[in-house]
Formats: sequence, C-alpha cells, structure tokens
Amino acid sequence: MQDRAPESGDGTSEAHVGAGHPLPRPEDLPLGSAERGRSTSGLFFGGDYNPDQWPEEVWAEDFALMRTASVNLATVGVFSWSRLQPSPDRFDFDWLDRVLDGLHSAGVGVCLATPTASPPLWFTRTHPDALPVTRQGVRLVHGSRDTYCINAPAYRQASLRIATELANRYSDHPALRLWHVHNEYGTWCFCEHCEHAFQDWLRDRHGTLDSLNDAWSTDFWSQRYGRWDEVLPPRATQYLPNPAQELDYRRFLSDSMIRHYRDQQAVLAGRWPVTTNFVVDDWVPVDHAAFAREVDLVAIDHYPTTIGEAPAERAFAADRARGWARAAGHPDGRWLLMEHAAGAIHTDGVLRSLPPGSITEAAETHLARGAVGIMYFQWRASRGGAEQWHPAMIPHEGSDGPVFDEITRLGAALATRAPEVVDADVALVYDEQTMWAWQGKHLPTRHVDYDRLALRWHAALTEAHGNVDVTPPGADLGRYRLVVVPALYLMSATTHNWLRSHTGDLVLTATCGLVDEHARVTPSSLQDIIGARVTARIWLPPTEPVVLADGRTAGLCFETLQPTTARVLHTTADGSPAVIRNGRVTYIAALDLVDPALTTPDARPVSASLGSDGTRSR
Amino acid sequence: MQDRAPESGDGTSEAHVGAGHPLPRPEDLPLGSAERGRSTSGLFFGGDYNPDQWPEEVWAEDFALMRTASVNLATVGVFSWSRLQPSPDRFDFDWLDRVLDGLHSAGVGVCLATPTASPPLWFTRTHPDALPVTRQGVRLVHGSRDTYCINAPAYRQASLRIATELANRYSDHPALRLWHVHNEYGTWCFCEHCEHAFQDWLRDRHGTLDSLNDAWSTDFWSQRYGRWDEVLPPRATQYLPNPAQELDYRRFLSDSMIRHYRDQQAVLAGRWPVTTNFVVDDWVPVDHAAFAREVDLVAIDHYPTTIGEAPAERAFAADRARGWARAAGHPDGRWLLMEHAAGAIHTDGVLRSLPPGSITEAAETHLARGAVGIMYFQWRASRGGAEQWHPAMIPHEGSDGPVFDEITRLGAALATRAPEVVDADVALVYDEQTMWAWQGKHLPTRHVDYDRLALRWHAALTEAHGNVDVTPPGADLGRYRLVVVPALYLMSATTHNWLRSHTGDLVLTATCGLVDEHARVTPSSLQDIIGARVTARIWLPPTEPVVLADGRTAGLCFETLQPTTARVLHTTADGSPAVIRNGRVTYIAALDLVDPALTTPDARPVSASLGSDGTRSR
Amino acid sequence: MQDRAPESGDGTSEAHVGAGHPLPRPEDLPLGSAERGRSTSGLFFGGDYNPDQWPEEVWAEDFALMRTASVNLATVGVFSWSRLQPSPDRFDFDWLDRVLDGLHSAGVGVCLATPTASPPLWFTRTHPDALPVTRQGVRLVHGSRDTYCINAPAYRQASLRIATELANRYSDHPALRLWHVHNEYGTWCFCEHCEHAFQDWLRDRHGTLDSLNDAWSTDFWSQRYGRWDEVLPPRATQYLPNPAQELDYRRFLSDSMIRHYRDQQAVLAGRWPVTTNFVVDDWVPVDHAAFAREVDLVAIDHYPTTIGEAPAERAFAADRARGWARAAGHPDGRWLLMEHAAGAIHTDGVLRSLPPGSITEAAETHLARGAVGIMYFQWRASRGGAEQWHPAMIPHEGSDGPVFDEITRLGAALATRAPEVVDADVALVYDEQTMWAWQGKHLPTRHVDYDRLALRWHAALTEAHGNVDVTPPGADLGRYRLVVVPALYLMSATTHNWLRSHTGDLVLTATCGLVDEHARVTPSSLQDIIGARVTARIWLPPTEPVVLADGRTAGLCFETLQPTTARVLHTTADGSPAVIRNGRVTYIAALDLVDPALTTPDARPVSASLGSDGTRSR
Repeated sequence: MQDRAPESGDGTSEAHVGAGHPLPRPEDLPLGSAERGRSTSGLFFGGDYNPDQWPEEVWAEDFALMRTASVNLATVGVFSWSRLQPSPDRFDFDWLDRVLDGLHSAGVGVCLATPTASPPLWFTRTHPDALPVTRQGVRLVHGSRDTYCINAPAYRQASLRIATELANRYSDHPALRLWHVHNEYGTWCFCEHCEHAFQDWLRDRHGTLDSLNDAWSTDFWSQRYGRWDEVLPPRATQYLPNPAQELDYRRFLSDSMIRHYRDQQAVLAGRWPVTTNFVVDDWVPVDHAAFAREVDLVAIDHYPTTIGEAPAERAFAADRARGWARAAGHPDGRWLLMEHAAGAIHTDGVLRSLPPGSITEAAETHLARGAVGIMYFQWRASRGGAEQWHPAMIPHEGSDGPVFDEITRLGAALATRAPEVVDADVALVYDEQTMWAWQGKHLPTRHVDYDRLALRWHAALTEAHGNVDVTPPGADLGRYRLVVVPALYLMSATTHNWLRSHTGDLVLTATCGLVDEHARVTPSSLQDIIGARVTARIWLPPTEPVVLADGRTAGLCFETLQPTTARVLHTTADGSPAVIRNGRVTYIAALDLVDPALTTPDARPVSASLGSDGTRSR
Repeated sequence: MQDRAPESGDGTSEAHVGAGHPLPRPEDLPLGSAERGRSTSGLFFGGDYNPDQWPEEVWAEDFALMRTASVNLATVGVFSWSRLQPSPDRFDFDWLDRVLDGLHSAGVGVCLATPTASPPLWFTRTHPDALPVTRQGVRLVHGSRDTYCINAPAYRQASLRIATELANRYSDHPALRLWHVHNEYGTWCFCEHCEHAFQDWLRDRHGTLDSLNDAWSTDFWSQRYGRWDEVLPPRATQYLPNPAQELDYRRFLSDSMIRHYRDQQAVLAGRWPVTTNFVVDDWVPVDHAAFAREVDLVAIDHYPTTIGEAPAERAFAADRARGWARAAGHPDGRWLLMEHAAGAIHTDGVLRSLPPGSITEAAETHLARGAVGIMYFQWRASRGGAEQWHPAMIPHEGSDGPVFDEITRLGAALATRAPEVVDADVALVYDEQTMWAWQGKHLPTRHVDYDRLALRWHAALTEAHGNVDVTPPGADLGRYRLVVVPALYLMSATTHNWLRSHTGDLVLTATCGLVDEHARVTPSSLQDIIGARVTARIWLPPTEPVVLADGRTAGLCFETLQPTTARVLHTTADGSPAVIRNGRVTYIAALDLVDPALTTPDARPVSASLGSDGTRSR
Repeated sequence: MQDRAPESGDGTSEAHVGAGHPLPRPEDLPLGSAERGRSTSGLFFGGDYNPDQWPEEVWAEDFALMRTASVNLATVGVFSWSRLQPSPDRFDFDWLDRVLDGLHSAGVGVCLATPTASPPLWFTRTHPDALPVTRQGVRLVHGSRDTYCINAPAYRQASLRIATELANRYSDHPALRLWHVHNEYGTWCFCEHCEHAFQDWLRDRHGTLDSLNDAWSTDFWSQRYGRWDEVLPPRATQYLPNPAQELDYRRFLSDSMIRHYRDQQAVLAGRWPVTTNFVVDDWVPVDHAAFAREVDLVAIDHYPTTIGEAPAERAFAADRARGWARAAGHPDGRWLLMEHAAGAIHTDGVLRSLPPGSITEAAETHLARGAVGIMYFQWRASRGGAEQWHPAMIPHEGSDGPVFDEITRLGAALATRAPEVVDADVALVYDEQTMWAWQGKHLPTRHVDYDRLALRWHAALTEAHGNVDVTPPGADLGRYRLVVVPALYLMSATTHNWLRSHTGDLVLTATCGLVDEHARVTPSSLQDIIGARVTARIWLPPTEPVVLADGRTAGLCFETLQPTTARVLHTTADGSPAVIRNGRVTYIAALDLVDPALTTPDARPVSASLGSDGTRSR
C-alpha cells in the first residue's frame, strides 16, 4: 500500500491517486445544479465504512482491500457521533483524521457523513424531551438508532453543532468529495415539540382556522377547531382518524426533515456537494420529490423486498431517483445509489443469497438508469450490533470468497466507465403523497398497493417503450410523448391543470383525481380531460375482477363511464365502457388493468358493434 | 318545492304536509309505552342529515330531493356539537333553526339528536380528564369521534347542558318528531373516573366485600379485596384477567351509558318520544335488553358483515330489536331501523356494491319484522372526513344514478304502507351477557362464536317455523309454543327458574348453564330441567366433530349424558346420547348441531334398538 | 377417614401414615445434595391443593378422596398470600393449620409454597412501584397473577417476611416434606428498579464501561456508553435492539429471580428440601441450568402444546430436567414433575381431552426418565377464576368419572414403585441462552425454532440410542460416548473448549459457534474442532432446502465447507460437502438435517468418487 501523508489544501491535486482508477475531481462531480454541473468521467464505487467498529490494524487491511476492489469513495462517520463527541463539550477527531488520511493515501475519496441520525447517550440522557414519541404516547429510548425527534430544539441545536465542527475540520480535507447529511431521514414522532411545530406549520400553510377547518372537513364528527393550539398530531384516537390531518402531518414531518437538512446544509455547503440518502419505502414520512430540490445530488438507499421482482424493483427505484432529480432541476437526471446490499436480499424473514453474477447485474441495472455511483452498505460485515447480519462487501467469512471476488471484478470494470445520461420520452407519474393517501384506513378498499401498481406499470412500460422516467406531479412534461398516470387518487387543481396541459399522449386510470390534495372527494373532476362522466364506481375484491369483452380481467375498482366527447375502445363482457379515448387522452375504467398496449396512440375500438357514445350500461 | 314558513306551536297541524306522504302524527307514533302507544299509520323513511358539512345552497337541493324521495324523517345534529356550541359559553342555533324550518317546509319531520357522542375541541382541551383511556393506559385524543369518558363529571355536565339547550329551543318546533340521544353508545374507558364509579357500582351491586370476593372467586390467585378502593377496572395485567371482573365491568359500563342517557332523557321527555340508536355488534359494552327498558322506541343501527349472509344477518338483527322491544314492555314489538347503508356492504376490507334491488330487499326484510321506519346513514355522501366513503342515499356521483333512483322508488312505495305487527309463537333466547362471557380468553375453546351460532339457529328456525322472536332472558314466554336456547353458557338461578317454568316446548344445547352470572362453574345445574346428568365434556376443534348414528356431525363441544328421567332421541355413532327429551324439554349434547327438526314436539327416537335409559357409554 | 390429631415435633415418626402408601421419609427424599441424598423408596403423587377456594366441608371430602387416590403429597399455599396476610400487619394461619393438620391426618405430606408469586391487593395498592412495567412502559395492574417486579425492594422485603412467617410456623409441622418457593419464576419487568439493578449487575459482570462497550459492540449505531447510569433495560426503541443488550438483560432477570429465591431459601432451609417449579417454555427469562444449582431438587411444570407430539414433548422436558439436575451436581439426575395437566392438552385454542389411559401413559413417560413424583395442577377444578377450565384430578363433573378413576388406579400402582435411576451414554446439548439468542429479530432467518429442532434431535436420538441426557453446556461429559450439539449458535470460548475436550464422539451442526456469548460473530471459530473452514453460508426458506446426493433434503441454513483435516461423508447433489468427519467429530453443514445415523462412529463416506479434500464447490 502506498504511504501517503494526508494533505490539506486543494484536493483537486489528488484527483487521480488510485491504482489506475480516477477519483472524480470536483468539477467532474455529477452535480445537477447549473453552477456546478458538468459532464463527468468516472463513477463512484464503494460503500459505508465504519472503522470505529474495528481495531486500527484492520484499517490497514481495509485500505489495501479497497484499493484491490478499485473503491474510490467511502461513506464515513454515519454512526460515529458518540465517538466524535464523547461528551457535550469534548470532541475527538483524531481517529477520524487517521481514517480520512488513510483513505486518501489509498486513493479513496470520502463521502463524509454528519452523524446526526444516531445521537449519543449523553445527549439522550440530558435531553429526554428529544426522544421520539409514538402515536400511542410511548417515549422510545436509546438502544437502537434514530432515537431523536426531528423538531426538538435541543436536538436541532446539537445536530447543527456537530455538523459545524465537521465542516470546520474537514471542508478542506483532500479526501473529501461529498457531504452526507444525516442518515435515512424518516423518523416519525408525535411529541409536544412536534405538536407546537405542527401548529406553526399549519398556520403557515392554511393561514386561517377557517381555511384549515374547510381543508380538513372538520364539520364532520364535530372536529371544528377554534384555536390553533387545539390542533394535535394524529395521536391514538378512538376510531378512524381524519384523513386530511394524517396527510398534513406527513407533509409537516417531511418539511421538518427538510428544515433539519437545511440547517446542516448551510454550514457544509462549499466546494463539495451536499446530499442525504433517501429511503425508498412506503413508511417514510418524507416527500422525496420536494426533498430532491434541496440536495445537490439525489442519492437513494434501495433494498428489494422480493427475489423474483428484484430487478423490476431496482429499475423502478432507479427511475424514481432519476425522475426526482430531473423534476428538481437537474436535467441530466443523474443520481447516486448510496446504499444497497451486496449479493443478498432479505425477504419473507430470510436473508437470501443471490446467485453469482447478481452483484454485477444489480449494478448494471442501476448504471443503465443514470446512477453515477454504486455504493453498498457496508464495506465490512459488523461483528456485533443489530446489523451484524447485514450483507457486506467483505462478509464475515473474509475477502477470499465469491462476494468480494465479484465486488473486485465489478470495481475494475467500473473504473473505465462513465455515467450514462438516460433519454426517455415516456413518463410514469408517481406521487408519494398519493401513496400516503392510499394508506388510509377509511378507504373503500384495503387492497390497493399503490407502489406495487406503479411498479407493474413501470415494468410493462419499460418493456414496451424502453426508458421510462418516473416523475412526480409538476415536472416538465415537454419532453415526453407519452405520460401514464395510474391511480393518482390525490389530485390538486394544480396537478389537474398540469395534466390537462400535456400535449402528448396521456393515459389515466380509474380513481385518478378522486380526491383533492386535502382528500376531499371531487366527483367526476376529470370529465374535462377524459371526456366522460363517472356515474358509479364499484370496489372489487382481488378475486372477483370485471371481465372484459376480450376475456381480460380488470379489478379492484371499476367505474361506470358516461362518455361525453370520448369514444369507447374496449368494453366489459356486458358492454360497459372499459377503456375510452378522448383526443390524446386514454382513460382506463379499472384500477388494475396494466397494459402498455393501451398506451399506444393508434389504439382503435376493438368492437365495431359498440355505439360511439358508449353509454350501453353494464 | 312548496314555500312554507316554519311554524311554532302544535306540530300536529302539519301532520300531512308531504307530497302525498303523511308525516306520522305524535299519536300515530309507534310507541310501545302504554300511555303513548296506539296503532300507527305510515312509516318513517329518511336518514342522517348533516347539513353543517355543506354550504346552504346545497340545503335547498337537499330539501327538494328529500321531497322527491318521499323522505319524511331526517336525523339532524348527531355530530354538530362544535357548531352548536362553538365555545363554552356561546351557542349558535341560527343555522339549525334554518335547517329545521327548511325540513319542515319540505314536509320532513326531524329526529333531533343531542350531539354528545362527539365533544368539541374546546371541551377536550379544557377537560383532558374526560378523554377516554385504553386498557393499556393510553389516553386517547381528539381527532376521530367518541372521544369521551362516559363517567367523567365534566362530560356528564356538558352533555346535560347542551341537551337542555336543545330541549329548551326545539321541544315545540313543528318539525320535531323524535329525540335521538347521543350516538351509538359503546365507548370503553378505563380511566380514574371509571375506577371510582366502578367501585360505587360494585358496592351497590354486591353490598359487601365478602359478597364481591365470593362472586369473583378472588380466593384463586390471591385476588381477595380488603377495601373497595382496591378494586380496579380490568386494565392491562400480567396474564389472564378475572372473568367475573370482566363481566361486571362490562355491566358497569352498560349502566354508565344508561345513566348518561337518563340524564338527557329527563330534560328531553315531553310530547315526543326519546330514543338512542343501538349498535348491534359484539364489541359494545352495552346490554341492550336492559337499555331497551329506558327508551320510548327501540332503534338500531345495523351493518351486515358479509355479502352471502347479509339477509340472515339483517333478519336476525331485526328480530333481536323486536325481541328487546317486547321484553321491555312494548307488546307490539315495534322498532326503528335508525341506520343502515344504502346498497353496499363493507366486508373483507372492500366496500362492495350490492346489485340493483338490494336496497328494496333490505327494507322489506326489516319491514316484515316490524320496523316502523327505514333510515340510512347518511343522506348525502360526505366530501371529506373519515366516513367520506360511507355509502349514502345520494352518492358522490349525484342523485341521477341508480342508488338514488331506487331510494326514490322505495320511498314512494313506503308512503302508502303501515308498519307490520309481527306475531311469533317461536322464540330464540339470545343474551348479550352470554356473548360477552364467550369472549373470555380463558375458555376451553376459542372457537365458539356465540353470535354466529345464534344467527344459524335463527335462520334455521325462521325457515322451519316462520316468524321467530329473539328474546333476552326474563321476557314473558307465555306466547311461545317453542323456545330454543342455544349455548346459554351464562345462566343465573333466575334464568334457570325462568326456563324451567316455561310450559311449552323447550330446546337447550350443550354448555347451557355451565356457569352462573358471575362465571362460576355450576356443573350439571340443568339436571332438573333436562333429566340427565353431564358426566364429562369434551371440546373439539372445528375440523374434528363427533359423528352421529345418522351420519350427521356435531362439534365444538360434546357432553356425555347420563339420563335420569330423559329418553334418548339420537345417539352418536358409538351409542352415546346426542339428543335427549325430558317431558317437553329437548337437550342437544353438542354445541353446534343446529337442526330445527330437533325442535318439533313429535320427535321420536331414531333408533329402536337403543335402551330407554340411554346410558350406553361412548 | 382416620382421625389423627396434628402433631408437632419430629415428622419422621409419621413416615408411614397412609393407607398402605408410604410417605417418603426425609432420609428417603430424592435429594441430590451429597449431605442429604440417599437412595429412595416411594414416589410422590399428588398435586396443587387450593382449599382456600372451597368451604371447609369440601376439605373433608378432599382428604378422603386423596386417600382414595393414594395421594401422598399436596402442594399448598401457592396462591394464598391474601388469605395468609390479609393486611400488612395481620397474619391468619389458622385455616392453613387446619389444612395441614387435615392432610397430615389423611396421610398426605405437604409441599408448602411461599405465596410470593401473587402479592395481595394491599401490597399492590401501597407499593405501586412494585408492579411490573412492560417494554412499552405500561405499568401492569393487579387483576391476574404474577403482578410483581422481582427487583422492587418493597416486594423483596415483603416476600422475605411472609416466607419467614411460614418458616417459623411450619418448619416442624409433621406433614411438611418439601418447601416450594414462589411459583413459576418468569415475570419480565422493565421498570426503574430493574434499571438500577441492571446497572449494578452489569458493573459486576463487565467491570468497566470499556468492557461493556466492547461486549455489546456499541461502536455500531453510536451506542457507546459513557456512564453506567446511561445503560437502560431494552425498552421500546426505534428499530432493532442491540442483541447483546437483550441477552444480558435476560441473564440479569434470571439472576434477579435466583436472588429472590435465595432470599427465601435462606430462611426456609432446614430439615426439608427447598425447590421451585421451573417453567419449561421459551418466553421465560430464566436460565434453568443455572437455577438448578440453587435448588435441592429440580422440579418442573410441563404442559405439551400439541396432541401429536405430546409424548415427545414430555420426554424432552423430562430429559432436560434430569440434565439440569445432573449438571447441577445431582449425579442420580432425579427430578420432580411438579405440575402437569390430567388427561388434557390445550392446543390450537381448544382444551382437548386425551383418550383413556393417557394419564398413565404420561406418568410412565416421566417415571421412565427419572421423575421422583407425579404431580398435577390441580387437585380439584376451580369453580371460578381465570383457571376454572384448567384440567384437574377431580373435574367439575366430580370424582365418579373417568379422570378420577384413572388417577386412582395410577396412585395405587405408584404406591409400590420406586424412582428409576436413568443411565444414559448419549447426551444432547441444549442451551437456554442459545434459545434466547435464536429469538433475535435481527437474525438472517426467522425460521429457526431452536426448541423444536432440539426436540426433533432428542426424539431421533432416543429412538436410535435409548436414554438421552439433555445437558447444558459445561456439564461433565465423561460418561457419554456420544454428544450431539445442534444449532448451538451462541458459544463462548469456555463452551468451545469444553466441546473440544470431549473424547467421545461429537456431532455438531451448521450455525454452531457462529457467535460468542455476547452475540459477536466469530467466523470459522469451529475450525480447530471440525477440521474445515466455512467459506460461505446461505439461509434458506423452509420450502427450498438443499438436496443431498442421496436425495435427502437439508434446509434452513447450509454452509460451504473447505475441509482441512476432515474427510467428507456426504455431499449435496452438486458435490458440496454436507457431512464431514474429523477424528471423532462429525459436522453437518445444514441446520435441519436431523438424522441419528450420522451420529454412529462407523459412518463412512457414501460416495467413493468424492475427493478427500472435499473442496469441490457447489
């Protein structure tokens, strides 16, 4: 291993220090912001590195093995708060200096994390009010990770302090390439700090109590608020919660996370881009489309949940990341895979090893969709702790097995490649707030899995059309010839207008626009777009779909359409319109009829015998 | 729509204001109490009307549509507390005046609700002690409905106050026809107010601690109480709770609800009958047989839970309502369907639409069983709130669809009909306290669903015998030639004597009388009635029933009988008595052998070869 | 019934008072401790007797029936605290005097329990801090049983006081034969008393915070402790808990129980042996191998959980009891079955009656494995309370049925028999701490049921080899020709050395020694024993096992082995080593290949074609 002293000063001079594997220079970083962005050469390759778990003699082996594997970026410090700040007024950066210097010497860049996702014990002990509280009022304790309330003043202050210390010490470290704020934003809390912050947030959002009462439909069930301090987080209550309150609370938590991020971003911003790692999962109270506008580079953590659909899950996550990046003003749509698992998937309660080649296959899936780097959690499998069985680039069994072999071969291959810029002329609209809305317990069906439905559309469109951008509402649709919008239950007037103004082909399905952004029913609101009125709507158990004239089935929800200007393309077996077309807009009257053939603009009625008004009733 | 000014004074002068649809006059109201009851003409038709959710321009449309649908009764104000009393010392009745006047002008009578089931925010904020507390000690917050403790003094006082204000203002309103106290009594609470009230209730019920200790069998597990203030609600504890304590707590909550009802009834009683809407479901801590004695007219809310058995569920609920009415001293057995859903059932997580005609079919089922009115929740589907997807008489899609069409046709048909008086000479004994007892976690089987077993008996008896009264223990049995008593596990000495004194045919099944009213085992207590001793009892999984000599199966529980005076009618395949007869009493040794053929008085032994003593062992 | 006055003084003079059924004399008691142990004649037969539930007239019947059934030991007082000490400063022993005198007169010995498992109401009321607290922070209330915190000072003091009173009054009672401390130790608590006691316990165990931090791997997730008072019980936290903390907490609770036992043992110890009844179940935070070293006689309560495997479950429990006794220094391995159910098993939510003969069959299973007595819970079925449906020696239906008949025949048969001393040259290693470790939520599989796996090995070994001792780690292995060690995931260096030093045949399976006693991964730690390195490990769903060359399947976990000194006995279908042998050590590379044929020392390679190094990869 090459012996290289740490150097302060201009990191760019070390831009090519690896063993033939170029470290991205700052100007090469795949940033989307106009003032920083440029074409790039090279890809990030590496993972989370938690050397504080290991004696220093292991570090040397790590640095050598990283070089072996062509690793050029290591995420450091994610869980190191208790080491970096052992007590309120004592900091210990010496060990981290040695880590960064060592990495630098090995030609490995550093993605330096602020450790704020896991506050140390002394903080928890002295600020019990900063521990999170569940919906049922249980104040959680230290003992795992993520034990913080994002709105607790003491926590916000302590977060800012450690971030500032890191910024002061390492902004100019030659190994630095990227700032990684926090980890996997997503912690729910229902405490009193959140209560007060929620009230402030609501005042900002709604202006007046009358406006709030109207948005939340509080005249039902005698929920009318007379004072701001009467509005609470949606804590455990007697029966069904107010769906608008639930939505606003999730938006509020999302904004709280973003505010926490901004606090740190302000002190870290400088030569190097700042980001955080998004959790792509349906329990997270974060609107990543909004958060994407705050980061210099969209980065995601992604863990498939099945073996069979893992490739489709990865592709969908990747295209979501690119869509968030594009919608946030990064036209090249580049994004970073900050975490995934090397060669294994946890599913149905078992950590399944994937066959040889899977590590490479996963990487190719991500790279083909615009990833600027392939990063893992984590470099070396932990001996202890709750994630000791998490897959790693170096398993417990050591670096001489098949996993590290494949990592090494992949690293070598990536060293000569550059990120792809993905062109797509088809877009799938996916909206996390709609996903939240579909989780309501008061809905007429519990069988809609919005993410899964979107995944199926994504897979089908990808097969039919090639690249697909997954885009949140509000993005520029100008580049797309075809936009598909499945199950967009939640639809504001703004989103309605945004869709209406699309000039290419547009496909919508049943339940689109059923409610507005405050979950208030807006019946037949799509009539001006789809050229038909919905006169009835039935909800179906998964086992009892509607049968179409051509024998296909369509389930979960089916709408009775009364076309006004639309014509009927397909009908049910008993003649009810199932798919209609109004100009360039196709509307599918069912919720789960996933068929990209319906998205082709030359679709024609399948039954000549059907009247053009399509009003024949079912 | 006819323009008619609201009139104060004698409402009877407006008795026939509808478009050919007579409003029931007070003397026509189907009251069971002797001083009020008279034969009736006309039926109630309508539903819950929550106009505070809508701008006033919608009201005018509502009134016109009610007239279209021949609606003659609207339930108003159920969820209006926060509108009627926006702050502790301010009342706003102007809008309600306009609603009642408008309804009156449209020829629609008013079932005026006290809004006490959903206290307003200012009450919740200023009286946090009046919020309900779960078994685990979680104090629930506002945000849904029913967030009250029925025993909290401040809540009782506030309830009385708003009820008094409504009584003062509207007792003489010409639209008024019925008072609707509260909504769906049934909220559990385990708070300190309940703790103290429970102690008082126990002192009244048991007199002495020795008596309580005896009733509750506290010598087991060292639970002996030495002071009244040691007795707590059955909050979360380490292992199985005391079954007698659980039963008494549910009785106590039931009595607490009745006390709350009585508080309001005292200020509302006058020209118009007073009632509340019973929840027919197995989680409710209300003994409706007892509550029925307090109301002027038994009214129920009923929502089937399956598609396939919805007709049987409706019939059973209707006959229960009639049975409660009869047992409470209303011999005509009339009752009101206060709430049901128009044309849809929520089952297995899906809101299923029923086929055309189902609305009428449901109504006919209820009317044939003595309903004096057919009412829905609710008139117009809500735009927002947790029940926005609840079916309604006017769906979101509007009044020009199939649902409102059927409602309108039904309303017209009902306008010329009168309530039926149902005669029945067969009774099925059903006891909610026994249902509670079967919910015990300590039982020898978890497979007994008492309500479902009773439903199956009800359906079978109805098919075999026609009308069936479902009657609680203690009712006058004089009118019945046949009384069937399935699974009456909980049996006091009073109930025992009541059954023994029945002179007609009587059918009992295994587990009847296994325990007394405090859940103390009373082995072979039925011997004097059934003429046999139970020498053993086995509990069976649903998949392993006992097989009878004739090939039928009988499961869940099977008793070994040693007849003394009874003779054996049926045996198991291995010769153990399965059905015996003692005078006019038939006893079925199994828990789930539901067969109305066994209830015919001329049943004879099926096997000539069986000895008359029936002691041949299994 | 013979009229015999109670006698104080030397109980041995009444050693043979029964009707032909000898009461064990003290010198005959099957004690393992050297100073007390002697060969024994006679067996205990009886059960829990709770006469405080019944009026005294029933007692006389009880005494007569006990004589009828040849009962010679009754466990008295388990749940009698509220009767014995009705208020803090009042004791009432008169009734217990009469019970003991009556039993003595009937020739029945007494196993006298301290009632500390169920504190009375006055204690609970005056010491709410002594009530247990759940992981979520819910303080449980009185109303069931076991509502205590084992570490609460007031509870420890009150326990000691009632035990002392009992010792003072009854140590010399002629009926006494055995002290029964407490009942079924096993209550979890997470309260503040436990918090402080846990900190003290940790200081004793780990010495320094550095040592604790190292053992618990706290550098992961920023869990590093800086002060002892920062360490908490593993209360509800945000995500996965620290596995080492969970293990230490369970050990701590186990030691807390033992400390509570010792407090009482100190005042009870005298002429008669002292014990407690172990709960053989997987939720109990008690290390019975350690607890066995404290008691004079290992006693267990055992309730099978299935019908089909009940005999195997009983055999496994019995052999565990004998193994604990032997490992604790009682070489004859005798143990007492303190509780089981007479003729019934609660399974799948149903209390199933067993066929005639089952009571005897169960007893024979236990006696053949060294039980010195057959005891039931309970003598007479309770009328009320949460265990009113628990099977009993005298069912509710009375003493003239089949259950008491079989009890009586069994009692008579036992009266002439003596305990068996069981010889076994095969041992199965079973470790409760490993069972706890397998319950971790962070594991790579949730499909390992360690107890069930051990049960299957036990049944297979028993069939193949006859008697099997189930032994905890650390026991003397000298007497065993074969030791089988399945799934011993948790393995300290001490246990490693203990196994390595075994000179007979040794069989280990996959996952043995995966982690050390603090759940830190120790890869390939078994290499020195098994003569192979583990180079990879896959986890398998139950439905997708690995297929061996001979067609057998092996699942849950499969390891890729690289033999160094071992030779390959069996391979998978694709040639990977599945079973290897290294000297006298056999290693099975799968987790659930349960096959006693693999344990025979003359096992030979099945495939001559396999290379001796066995490195052919899968």
